[in-house]
Amino acid sequence: MRVQKRRIEKDFDNISNFGKLSNGGVTRLAFSKEDIESRNYLHKTMEEIGLEVRIDAFGNMRGRREGLEELAPVAIGSHLDTVPEGGHYDGVVGVIAALEVIRVLNDKDIRTKRPIEVINLSAEESSRFGGATLGSKVLSGKISLAGLNKYVDREGLSLYEALKDNGFKPDEIESAVLNKGDIYSFIEMHIEQGPVLETENISVGIVTSIAAPTRFRVNFKGVADHSGNTPMSIRKDALTAASELVLGVERIARDEAGPATVGTVGYLYVKPGAMNVIPGGVELGIDIRDISSDDKKMAVKKVIDLIVEIKKNRPVEIEYEILTDDEPVQLSNKVIQILEQTAEEIGLSYKVMHSGAGHDAMHMADIANTGMIFIPSKNGISHNIEEFTEMDDVCKGAELLLETTIKLAQE
Amino acid sequence: MRVQKRRIEKDFDNISNFGKLSNGGVTRLAFSKEDIESRNYLHKTMEEIGLEVRIDAFGNMRGRREGLEELAPVAIGSHLDTVPEGGHYDGVVGVIAALEVIRVLNDKDIRTKRPIEVINLSAEESSRFGGATLGSKVLSGKISLAGLNKYVDREGLSLYEALKDNGFKPDEIESAVLNKGDIYSFIEMHIEQGPVLETENISVGIVTSIAAPTRFRVNFKGVADHSGNTPMSIRKDALTAASELVLGVERIARDEAGPATVGTVGYLYVKPGAMNVIPGGVELGIDIRDISSDDKKMAVKKVIDLIVEIKKNRPVEIEYEILTDDEPVQLSNKVIQILEQTAEEIGLSYKVMHSGAGHDAMHMADIANTGMIFIPSKNGISHNIEEFTEMDDVCKGAELLLETTIKLAQE
Repeated sequence: MRVQKRRIEKDFDNISNFGKLSNGGVTRLAFSKEDIESRNYLHKTMEEIGLEVRIDAFGNMRGRREGLEELAPVAIGSHLDTVPEGGHYDGVVGVIAALEVIRVLNDKDIRTKRPIEVINLSAEESSRFGGATLGSKVLSGKISLAGLNKYVDREGLSLYEALKDNGFKPDEIESAVLNKGDIYSFIEMHIEQGPVLETENISVGIVTSIAAPTRFRVNFKGVADHSGNTPMSIRKDALTAASELVLGVERIARDEAGPATVGTVGYLYVKPGAMNVIPGGVELGIDIRDISSDDKKMAVKKVIDLIVEIKKNRPVEIEYEILTDDEPVQLSNKVIQILEQTAEEIGLSYKVMHSGAGHDAMHMADIANTGMIFIPSKNGISHNIEEFTEMDDVCKGAELLLETTIKLAQE
Repeated sequence: MRVQKRRIEKDFDNISNFGKLSNGGVTRLAFSKEDIESRNYLHKTMEEIGLEVRIDAFGNMRGRREGLEELAPVAIGSHLDTVPEGGHYDGVVGVIAALEVIRVLNDKDIRTKRPIEVINLSAEESSRFGGATLGSKVLSGKISLAGLNKYVDREGLSLYEALKDNGFKPDEIESAVLNKGDIYSFIEMHIEQGPVLETENISVGIVTSIAAPTRFRVNFKGVADHSGNTPMSIRKDALTAASELVLGVERIARDEAGPATVGTVGYLYVKPGAMNVIPGGVELGIDIRDISSDDKKMAVKKVIDLIVEIKKNRPVEIEYEILTDDEPVQLSNKVIQILEQTAEEIGLSYKVMHSGAGHDAMHMADIANTGMIFIPSKNGISHNIEEFTEMDDVCKGAELLLETTIKLAQE
């Protein structure tokens, strides 16, 4: 193997420290202090290995190794931000594998026709601002200046303000947009976040398509009232109404849509939220995904029908807003073929598979020939402090990334 | 009428300012800055009308007007703390009516055999520390020094620390305990927090018994996992399990226990609480009340049975803790009779009724001959910014409180 485990481990350990929790997990929310610290580390490291760093108006970082010819670059990378109380592998492994690719090329003094870029995309996780893969959405022209004000965190700070506060340039967001072909190819190596590779004892997954989410924000408005003196028959309880929807989303995804449909209510806030007050308001978020567009549409329709039904049967007002409604994305056949061929050449077991989780690769596919490499997740657990991948598996994925990148960069 | 509306209104307006919200409501949590400000106002006002103020180790305030003889005092009052985003009447009206009683006695130069005390009890609302009527529990010897550390607010601050931070003396809590007879009688005037008086167009309620709550804190532990890559069949979702309990509490209170049973899940926190993460943990609070001890026991048993059933059917761990399990309380027949007789004498329409809500009067009944006066709540709404009572109704209740207090103080 040409990649070196100890160098990958060193980057991993260093980045793990930014936002590390006493329970072993990590909280490194998009544009938080911890996220900025990890970016500064990456910036320094990119420069140390000879990359020229450019940071766009949205904070997306691109470290460039020049090529021999004036061609569009071959890009590799992922993201450094995390969910709250998440793990250390999601996103990070794709960035540190990309750094190692550059180190190997430097060591072996390999010059490529095309430039190679290591990319760190901003705000991939939706945890803080409610929208996912924002950095790649900006690159592919899907977020306008006006849009930056629509994403707001729990403290009421908008994405626009968070960018400004950190010295980025939200007003110039249009300058970050790339055209199709500005990047030749993009490969994101990522943990699987599911149990398949580990269960089947396979080294890498080669991703063919990505299930994109449809996301709702739902607001229930009842009447906050005294829990002791308000008879059951006249209550307007927002939480009991919301609980019907929570169970309905589970039932629809499990039993009433497609075989691969998943549906989750991941957050739910109760107002005023006191022991002795009937909940007067609830806000919750619904995330529905499928690799089949039709099955997802069916699930979304059933959820909307259920909201209408709950509203009819209970004395509460319910409003919903669809935050994202993306189509499942097909990745580049060209990249998939090179990945398969390369895995065979270097003797890695691999599986051609879907991704149930969304990734920046969905939007990078608009700009570049895009592929993804999955590496195993222990017990399939992710977005959790238990998230774990063997460092040897990280190295195997990085090796496939290295050899594939060289091929693409010589085209 | 001997009480003066403009003086009552002045106290009301002044106290309303402490913690007033831009939406018209008020947040004055126990031992918060706003609560302390309202106490300081009360302290000053008590001194202005000639009361000698004593504050015990738990912050309970007693302003004393001396009597002609060395007898146990007649006490009147309620509390100044509120729920989050609550109304301005709950608790407050009982304190300001008591101040007005003293003013009338001063104006008319009425001397009484017994001393009269205006009381403000600490931490009546459970919103901050999860336990209700804490001030009167301390007075009646139901909270020990060790107990003060068990009540913790959402920021992790214990009741012990909150007391210390505000200059009270939690280490001397035993010194605050009163014996039966240390206070001769206690009358708490309070808003009804229900719709009966308004609907039946009756001026005051004379309370015979109080439905005490049984309260649970329930913790669900599942596994936080990625919302996209975790099939429905292998999820360990804490929120769907919790939602079954929310709906179950509603169903049990509404259909499966007694006619007067009420059951509420008033707060619910989700961890980690992000759009794309399956909830790994939920904490919620259950409040069950009844005026019938047997019906309440039945409801509590069914809730516990349901917790066991959910645990059996879903792959989550569930732990519960019973925070309070109080018996419904019978108030003093002696005081009830004097209240009825006095209401007739001064020509006030009245209704003898139960209280579905808990009050400090429950615990004061251990120490003193205790009664309660209810005044109408508009639309029965309470613990909400819509809480409202006509000032004329406050005055009618205060008049009944005045005349009854004089009678008791001459005994």
